Amino acid sequence: MKQMRACVIIIGNEILSGRTQDTNLQWLARSLGELGIALVRAHIIRDDANEVVATINHARSHYDYVFTTGGIGPTHDDITTACVAQAFNVPVVRDAEAQRRLHAYYPPEKRNDARMKMADIPQGATLIDNPVSAAPGFHIDNVFVMAGVPTIMQAMFFDIKARLRHAPPMHTRTIHTLTPEGDLAAVLCAVQTAYPQIELGCYPHMRGGKFSTSLVMRGMEAADVDEVALQIQERLRPLGVNFTEAEL
Amino acid sequence: MKQMRACVIIIGNEILSGRTQDTNLQWLARSLGELGIALVRAHIIRDDANEVVATINHARSHYDYVFTTGGIGPTHDDITTACVAQAFNVPVVRDAEAQRRLHAYYPPEKRNDARMKMADIPQGATLIDNPVSAAPGFHIDNVFVMAGVPTIMQAMFFDIKARLRHAPPMHTRTIHTLTPEGDLAAVLCAVQTAYPQIELGCYPHMRGGKFSTSLVMRGMEAADVDEVALQIQERLRPLGVNFTEAEL
Repeated sequence: MKQMRACVIIIGNEILSGRTQDTNLQWLARSLGELGIALVRAHIIRDDANEVVATINHARSHYDYVFTTGGIGPTHDDITTACVAQAFNVPVVRDAEAQRRLHAYYPPEKRNDARMKMADIPQGATLIDNPVSAAPGFHIDNVFVMAGVPTIMQAMFFDIKARLRHAPPMHTRTIHTLTPEGDLAAVLCAVQTAYPQIELGCYPHMRGGKFSTSLVMRGMEAADVDEVALQIQERLRPLGVNFTEAEL
Repeated sequence: MKQMRACVIIIGNEILSGRTQDTNLQWLARSLGELGIALVRAHIIRDDANEVVATINHARSHYDYVFTTGGIGPTHDDITTACVAQAFNVPVVRDAEAQRRLHAYYPPEKRNDARMKMADIPQGATLIDNPVSAAPGFHIDNVFVMAGVPTIMQAMFFDIKARLRHAPPMHTRTIHTLTPEGDLAAVLCAVQTAYPQIELGCYPHMRGGKFSTSLVMRGMEAADVDEVALQIQERLRPLGVNFTEAEL
C-alpha cells in the first residue's frame, strides 16, 4: 500500500496575529506519523471565507487527507462549516444526532441559536465525536474538520483514527553530535546520494553559544534506515566526530 | 499609507514530521504586527525544490512582503537559496562580502566547500546580517530569506526592519471573561456587524474543565477599537457577564 499524504489547514486570525502559539500542527504531525501517514503540507490562513474555500478545494484535490483545525464554534468568526459546505457545493443542514448531543450537554436555558448552530454540518458529512464539549466535528469525503482548542482537537483525532487508511509507519532514527553541521556536510551529501530512498535531514541547534547537530533518517524499510545510520557513523568517526543516539 | 500584507514560508521537513515545534511564525507575527505589517498567510512546506519555487513565486506576486525561514545552511538539504534564484530566474553567485564574513568567522581549516557555499546568493540579492554565526541571509525584491534557527532568524529580522515600509501599527485590545463564548455570540455578532472596520475575534480556552473566552479587537483607529470594547461591555453586562481587561 502506498503511503498516504496529508495536508493540515490551520484556520484562525489568532495564529497569524501572533496572539496564539499553534501547537496543533506538531501534535497532528506526530500522530499522523505514528499511523504511517505523511504530513507533507500545512497552510495557516485567516478567517476569510474565500481563502478558506479555495484552500480546502485545492488541498482536497492534491492530498489523500485534509485536516482542518479551528472555526467551528458558535460565534460570528466561526465560518469553517459554511466554507466546507461551499467548497463541496452542498447545503449546511441541521443534524439530528448533533442536535441530540447538544441538548444532552446544554440545559434548556443555554440552548441559544448560536450554540445550536453547532449542530449544523454540510449535507452528507459524518460526525466526529467531541467527548469534551459535545459540539461535534465532521468529515466529508477526505476532509476532516476539527476544533481549534487543542484538547478538543486531540479527542476528535482519537475518534477519526479508525477511519483513516494507512500504510505501516515510517522508520526513524536520530543521531546527535556536538560537531557543527558544516563539518558533516560532505559525508551527508555522499550518503544521501547513495541512499535516495531515505530522507536524511540535518538540523543545527544553538545552545549556550555552541552549535550541535541532529541527523534524522526516515524511510519505509528499517534495514535501510539502519544501514544509513551505520554508514554515517563509520564515515564520520575517522574525522573525529562523536555521536549519541537519541531514539530508535 | 495602506497596510502592508506579509506572507511567511516555513521551509523544513522537521516541522512537518513533528520533530520540531515551530516558534518562528509566532515571533514573526508579533514582530511584524508591532511594525504595522499584517501577517495574513503562512505556508509550511517540505525541503522539496518544486514546492519551494512554486510557493515563493505565488507568494511574492500576492503579498507585499515574503519572509522565509529555513534551508540556508551548509548541508545537502539546504536548498532555499537555489530555489529563490530559480524563482527569480537568476543565477546563484559567490558574494565577495559574504565570503569575507565567512573567512573572518571560520579559521582556514574550517573553510570547506560546504561552508563556503553559504557565501552564494542569488544574483542581485542584498545580504542580511547574521551576527550570531556569520553566514548571511539575503533579500531580493520583496522576498526576505532567513535562517531557521530561532536566535539567528531573530537577529536577521532585526537587521531588515529598517528596510520594510509600513503603516502605523494596528491598535489592539483584549478582554477576558469566564463566560463561555456561546453566551456572548449574539452580542458579538451584532457589534461586529455595526463596526465592520474592526476585526473582532472570539477565542475559547479550556482550563481545568472550564471554558473561558478572550475577545480581541484590532483596527487602524484607536477610537474605533475603544468604542467596540465599550459597546461589548455595555451590552453584555446586563446579561451578567463580567470582564477583566488584559492588555491595552
